[in-house]
Amino acid sequence: MIVIMQTGATSDNIEGVVRRLRENGLRAQISWGEERTVIGVLGTGFPPELEHSLEALAGVERVTRITRPFKLASRDFKPLDTAVPVDGLAVGAEGDFVVMAGPCSVESREQVLQTARSVRKSGAAVLRGGAFKPRTSPYSFQGLGEDGLKLLAEARAETGLPIVTEVLDVRDVEIVAAYADILQIGARNMQNYPLLREVGNTRHSVLLKRGLSATIEEWLLAAEYIMAGGNLNVILCERGIRGFDSQYTRNVLDISAVPVVKRLSHLPVIIDPSHAAGKWYLVKPLALAAAAAGADGLLIEVHPSPDHALSDGPQSLNLQNFDDLMCALQPILAASGRRLAGGRLEPVSA
Amino acid sequence: MIVIMQTGATSDNIEGVVRRLRENGLRAQISWGEERTVIGVLGTGFPPELEHSLEALAGVERVTRITRPFKLASRDFKPLDTAVPVDGLAVGAEGDFVVMAGPCSVESREQVLQTARSVRKSGAAVLRGGAFKPRTSPYSFQGLGEDGLKLLAEARAETGLPIVTEVLDVRDVEIVAAYADILQIGARNMQNYPLLREVGNTRHSVLLKRGLSATIEEWLLAAEYIMAGGNLNVILCERGIRGFDSQYTRNVLDISAVPVVKRLSHLPVIIDPSHAAGKWYLVKPLALAAAAAGADGLLIEVHPSPDHALSDGPQSLNLQNFDDLMCALQPILAASGRRLAGGRLEPVSA
Amino acid sequence: MIVIMQTGATSDNIEGVVRRLRENGLRAQISWGEERTVIGVLGTGFPPELEHSLEALAGVERVTRITRPFKLASRDFKPLDTAVPVDGLAVGAEGDFVVMAGPCSVESREQVLQTARSVRKSGAAVLRGGAFKPRTSPYSFQGLGEDGLKLLAEARAETGLPIVTEVLDVRDVEIVAAYADILQIGARNMQNYPLLREVGNTRHSVLLKRGLSATIEEWLLAAEYIMAGGNLNVILCERGIRGFDSQYTRNVLDISAVPVVKRLSHLPVIIDPSHAAGKWYLVKPLALAAAAAGADGLLIEVHPSPDHALSDGPQSLNLQNFDDLMCALQPILAASGRRLAGGRLEPVSA
Amino acid sequence: MIVIMQTGATSDNIEGVVRRLRENGLRAQISWGEERTVIGVLGTGFPPELEHSLEALAGVERVTRITRPFKLASRDFKPLDTAVPVDGLAVGAEGDFVVMAGPCSVESREQVLQTARSVRKSGAAVLRGGAFKPRTSPYSFQGLGEDGLKLLAEARAETGLPIVTEVLDVRDVEIVAAYADILQIGARNMQNYPLLREVGNTRHSVLLKRGLSATIEEWLLAAEYIMAGGNLNVILCERGIRGFDSQYTRNVLDISAVPVVKRLSHLPVIIDPSHAAGKWYLVKPLALAAAAAGADGLLIEVHPSPDHALSDGPQSLNLQNFDDLMCALQPILAASGRRLAGGRLEPVSA
Repeated sequence: MIVIMQTGATSDNIEGVVRRLRENGLRAQISWGEERTVIGVLGTGFPPELEHSLEALAGVERVTRITRPFKLASRDFKPLDTAVPVDGLAVGAEGDFVVMAGPCSVESREQVLQTARSVRKSGAAVLRGGAFKPRTSPYSFQGLGEDGLKLLAEARAETGLPIVTEVLDVRDVEIVAAYADILQIGARNMQNYPLLREVGNTRHSVLLKRGLSATIEEWLLAAEYIMAGGNLNVILCERGIRGFDSQYTRNVLDISAVPVVKRLSHLPVIIDPSHAAGKWYLVKPLALAAAAAGADGLLIEVHPSPDHALSDGPQSLNLQNFDDLMCALQPILAASGRRLAGGRLEPVSA
Repeated sequence: MIVIMQTGATSDNIEGVVRRLRENGLRAQISWGEERTVIGVLGTGFPPELEHSLEALAGVERVTRITRPFKLASRDFKPLDTAVPVDGLAVGAEGDFVVMAGPCSVESREQVLQTARSVRKSGAAVLRGGAFKPRTSPYSFQGLGEDGLKLLAEARAETGLPIVTEVLDVRDVEIVAAYADILQIGARNMQNYPLLREVGNTRHSVLLKRGLSATIEEWLLAAEYIMAGGNLNVILCERGIRGFDSQYTRNVLDISAVPVVKRLSHLPVIIDPSHAAGKWYLVKPLALAAAAAGADGLLIEVHPSPDHALSDGPQSLNLQNFDDLMCALQPILAASGRRLAGGRLEPVSA
Repeated sequence: MIVIMQTGATSDNIEGVVRRLRENGLRAQISWGEERTVIGVLGTGFPPELEHSLEALAGVERVTRITRPFKLASRDFKPLDTAVPVDGLAVGAEGDFVVMAGPCSVESREQVLQTARSVRKSGAAVLRGGAFKPRTSPYSFQGLGEDGLKLLAEARAETGLPIVTEVLDVRDVEIVAAYADILQIGARNMQNYPLLREVGNTRHSVLLKRGLSATIEEWLLAAEYIMAGGNLNVILCERGIRGFDSQYTRNVLDISAVPVVKRLSHLPVIIDPSHAAGKWYLVKPLALAAAAAGADGLLIEVHPSPDHALSDGPQSLNLQNFDDLMCALQPILAASGRRLAGGRLEPVSA
Repeated sequence: MIVIMQTGATSDNIEGVVRRLRENGLRAQISWGEERTVIGVLGTGFPPELEHSLEALAGVERVTRITRPFKLASRDFKPLDTAVPVDGLAVGAEGDFVVMAGPCSVESREQVLQTARSVRKSGAAVLRGGAFKPRTSPYSFQGLGEDGLKLLAEARAETGLPIVTEVLDVRDVEIVAAYADILQIGARNMQNYPLLREVGNTRHSVLLKRGLSATIEEWLLAAEYIMAGGNLNVILCERGIRGFDSQYTRNVLDISAVPVVKRLSHLPVIIDPSHAAGKWYLVKPLALAAAAAGADGLLIEVHPSPDHALSDGPQSLNLQNFDDLMCALQPILAASGRRLAGGRLEPVSA
C-alpha cells in the first residue's frame, strides 16, 4: 500500500499516518518528493479496513493498493489453469471448448426435450435452461420451479447432457443442487453475498455471471466469496455490461474480459453472447469472436420456436441457426488447436 | 404497444403479426407508411411476454411499449404523494424533510450511542447503522449481526430515534424486522427478487436503494415487487450510479432522479450523498443540492471518528461536520416552505 | 511518479527501470515489498512521455502519477478563486451568481429581442444564443451564421446584456470574437485542440463545456490548453454527461462536478441544466440544486415559444417559466449570502 | 414518426398536434388507446426539426422516429457493400482483410522506415503513423507536423504501402491530403463538423473513428456529414468506447459494433484493438476476435521499441509480436474464406 499525501500536508499529518501504521504492526518508508510526500507501507497481514481508514486521516490525498484484493482466484496464487469438472467434461481443460445451449426458460416437456436432442447433435456439451427466473417485472413469467428442474433431469437422462440452471434464492440451493450439474449465479446476484456463500458451501461447480456494471476486480472478488467457502470450481461468464447505447444491442459484450481474466486468474471464462446482444442475428459473430479471443466456451440461448418463447425470444437462436453457428465455430477453434468438447453427431436437418 | 416493421417487410410478415395479436385477443391497426409499416395494438390485458415474442417474429424491426411497466408505483395509479409512516414520522409528508444519519457499520455500544445522541441534537429524525454488511471482499468486516441490532435498539430506547438498517438475506428478514423501523434494501440487492418479495410480505416500511446501474424504470419495477406483496410503504433512495470517472467521486449522484421519480411515482425519494460522493468533503454540497432539488430527505453516514471506522471512513462526516450541514440545510428547506422533521435541539459543541 | 513492478519481476527488470530513470536525470527509491517491488521516482522536470514509456518496460505492472497533469488551472498553482471578467460583470466573483439565458439558436430578430428583454427583466445577466450550431445530423438547421451574430449584437445594444455564443470552427474565431463577450466551446469540441489553442490566443473570456464523456481531469486539461496560450479567463460549464439511461433525461447532470472542480481548480464553474435534462420541466429543480451546490452561475435555454424552436424546443423554458425559476433561485442564493448578478427588474407578466 | 400522448392529454392537446402536422403538410392517424392516444404521422419530407418541436407541444409524452436519420450511409439506400479504394487496394472488398499498421507517432526517419519495412513483410497493407497528434495534455509531444508527413511519404516510396494519417485542423486538410492516401478523423473529432465537411469536400478516402461515447447512430450521422459533401469513401473504425472500468483496459472494445454496422450500413468497418485495449498483450486476442466477428480490417500500433515511443508505448506491439499476430490471423480469416490483402512476404526474424 502507498499513501499519497496532499500538497501542503503538514509533518503532523505525516506523523499521524506513521503512527497509525505502527499501531497496525506495519512500517512506513517516507519519500519526500518535491510536491508531495509519499509513504510506502511495509509489512504483512494488514486488515482490509486499513486502506479506507488511512484515506480518512487528515492530510491524506489517496491510498493506492499494490496487491490484488483477491487471492484464491488469482493466478499469482495458482499459476496453472483450473479445469472445472462437469460430469465427464472439464470446462477450461486444454484443447476443449464447451458450448452450453438451451432455452432461456424451461416451458414444457416437449420444448426441453426437442431442444436438448437438437443441440446435442449440433455439438453442445451442456444443456442450459431456467426453472427459477429473475424477471425485471413481478408480472412476468417466473419459471416452472421444481417442475422445470424435473424436465431438465429428464432431458439429461435421455441425452446425457449435464445441466446448468440458475439458483436465485439461498433457500433453493439444496433443491437446485439435487438436479443441476452446474449452479448458475445470475448477473443480478453477482453481489448477493449470502447466495455466494451458500453455493460456496456446496461442492457443485458454479457458473458465475458478471454483474451488469461490475468491474473485473469486483467479479473476481465475487468468485473469491465462493472459493473462500472451499468450493474452487468456479466458471466465470461474461454476458455483456451496461453501456450508453442500447438502441441496437441490449448490452455491450466486453470481449476484452477474456484475455484480462486469463491474465489475472486461473479460472475458466466463457461468454454468453445471447444476453450481451439481445438480438439473435448478432449471436453468431459474437460467438465466433469469443472463440477467437480465447474463451473456454459459450452459453447460448436456443429455442425451437423463438417467437413463442416465454422469455428472451428476440435473442434466442432457432435450432437450425444454432447448428450453423456450431459449424462455423469449428475452423476458428482449430486455428488454436481446439475442438468442441461434446463433438458434433450429425447435421441437423433444416 | 406499437410494432414497427422492417423496411421491406412482406405482407406475410405483417399478416404474421396480426395473427399473433388476434391469438392474444387483441386487434391490429395497420398504418402503411412510405418506408415502413407500423402496427398499433388495440385491446387490453396482454401478457408481458407478448412484447418480446412479437419482437421475435419475422419482419419485425422493434416493438415500442406506450404504457409504463409499473403500476402500483405509478403516479397514474395514485396521483397523490405517499407519506411512508416511520414511528411517529412520515417520510414524504408535505413540509417535512427527514434526515437519517448514523454510522455505516455498528461497531460498538459507545460508537452507536454517542452518534445517536449527537445526530439527534443536530436534527436527525432517524438513526441509520448497519449490522449485516454487504462487503465487496469476503475478507472485510461483515458486521456485528444481531448484536449490532441490539445496540441500535438500545440507541432508539435512549434517543427516541427510529432505526433504519439493512437486511441482506431472506432468512434474516424476520429478525431484522423485529428490531428495525425501516428495512433497508441495499443497492446490490435491488434486483434480489426473493428478498424483495420477502420484505413485500411484511408491513414494515422499506427503504429501497437504487442499483448501481439500474435505470429509473428498473428501480420502480423493484419497488413494484415489494408493493405487489401488499406492502405499499416504500421509500426510494438514490445513492449514486456507476460512471466512467471515479477518480474524484466514488459514483455519480444522479440528482435528476429526484424530479424524474416525483413525476413518475407517488413514492417519496431521498438521497444518500455519502455513497454517491465517497468523500466526506463532498457530502455537504450534495446534500444541499438534494434538498433544493426537492428530495424528501437524506441518508448520511456519520461517525464520531471517521478515521477509525471499520467501513466507509473516507465518506463519513464527523459529528461537528454533520451539525454544520444541518445548520446549512435549514434556509434551503425554508426556501420551499419545509423544515427538518426531527427539529434541531441545540448546537453540538465543537 | 511511482512504478509498481509485476509480481515476479526480475532484478534485470528493476535495473531497467532504474537505468531509464537515470537517463532522464531522475533518481529511483526502491522499496522491496513482500509481494511486489515499488520504485519511487525522485527529481523534477520529467517529460510527460516518461510515464507511458516506463509502463512499456519489461516487468512493470503500472505507473501511478502523484502530481496532477494540469498546472495553470490548478488551485495549487493559484489558491484564490478566479473571477472572469465579462463586460461589467465577473463570473466567479464572491457573492455573485450569474445567469446566462436565451434561445438555443438565434432564429429571428423578433425572437432574440423579445427573449433578451424578458430574461433581462427576470434577472439574467448574460444573453446566450447560437449563431453557428453543431448539429448531429447534416440535414438539421445549422444556424444563421454572421446574421445571427448581428442580431445578438442588436439585442446587446438594446438591453445591455453581454453575449455568450458558440464558436465551432478555427476560421470563425475572429468573427465570433468581434461580436461576442464570451466565446463558447461546446461539449463536442472540448478536445478540439486547434480550436482551444485559437481561443487561447485571444484575450476573450471563454466558456468551456465539459465533453459528454470527459473526465474531470480531461476537462481541466482542455482548460489548460486555453490557458497555456496566455488566456486565463476560462469559465467551466458542466452540461450533463452520457449515462446508461436516457429514457427520462437526455444526459446525467454530474452535480458533484461543482464541488470537485472548486477543490481542484480556481476557475469558476457553472451548470447548464437544459442540456443535462433535455426536458423543460426538469430544469427548475436542477437549477436550484446547482445553486445550492455552490455553482457560480447557470446557462439556460429560454424561448418565447418552445414548440416553434428550430432546435432544443423540448428543453427550453418559456419566458414565464424562466421568470418563476429566477424567483425561486433568490432564497437559495440568499442562504449562502449570494445574489443574482444582474438583479431582477420587475416581474414578467404572464 | 409516432407521437405518444400523455395519459390524460386533452382533446385540445391532440388537436394541437394534428394542427401542427397539417401546417407541415402531413396527415395524422389517431389511435385512441385505453390509456393513451397515439398519433401516427403520415406523409413525407418533414423537416428534422419537427420531431423536437412536436415533443415540446402540450400533452405530448414523447415522439418516436421510425425511419433512420442517416440516408447515404444506410444499407436501405445502398444494399451492396461499399469497397473503399486505397491506392491499389479496396477496404471492404469481398475476401480481403486489410491490416493497417505502424507507429502511433512518426518520431524519426529510422523509426518509420524500419517499421514500414517490417510490417510490410508481415503482411500489412497500409502504413499508419501520426504527424499531427491530438494529445490530452498541451505539454505532451504534439507530432512532427509536415516533417512527419514527408517521412511517411518516403516510407511509401520505398515500401509501396499507402499511408493513413490523422488530420486535426480544417486548415491542414489540404496539406495532409497531399501526402496521405487515407485521411484519418480521430475519435475526439468525430463530431467536429467543420472538419467532417472539409474532408467531405475532398475525394480522398476517409477513416472515421468512433467517438469515445458516440452511439452507433451518431457515428453513422458523422459519416453522413462526409458523404453529404459527395465523398462516399468512408471507412468506419471502432476503437473502444468509454466504460466504467479502466483498471485493466483503457477502453471497452465494442465488438458488436461490427455486425451492427454491417446490418445498418454498406460502409466497411475495421477495428483498432490498440486504443481499445491500451495494453500490448491484449492486442492479439482482440485482433483475432475482430477478424472472427467479420471486421474488414485492423488498425494496429507497432513500434520497433515500444518503451522508447513518444506516445502510446504501452499499447504498441513490437515488430516480432506484430508478426506473430499476422501469422495467427491467417487461419481465422481462412475460416471465412478471406485472406490478408497485402499478403505476407516472409517471416520477420526475431
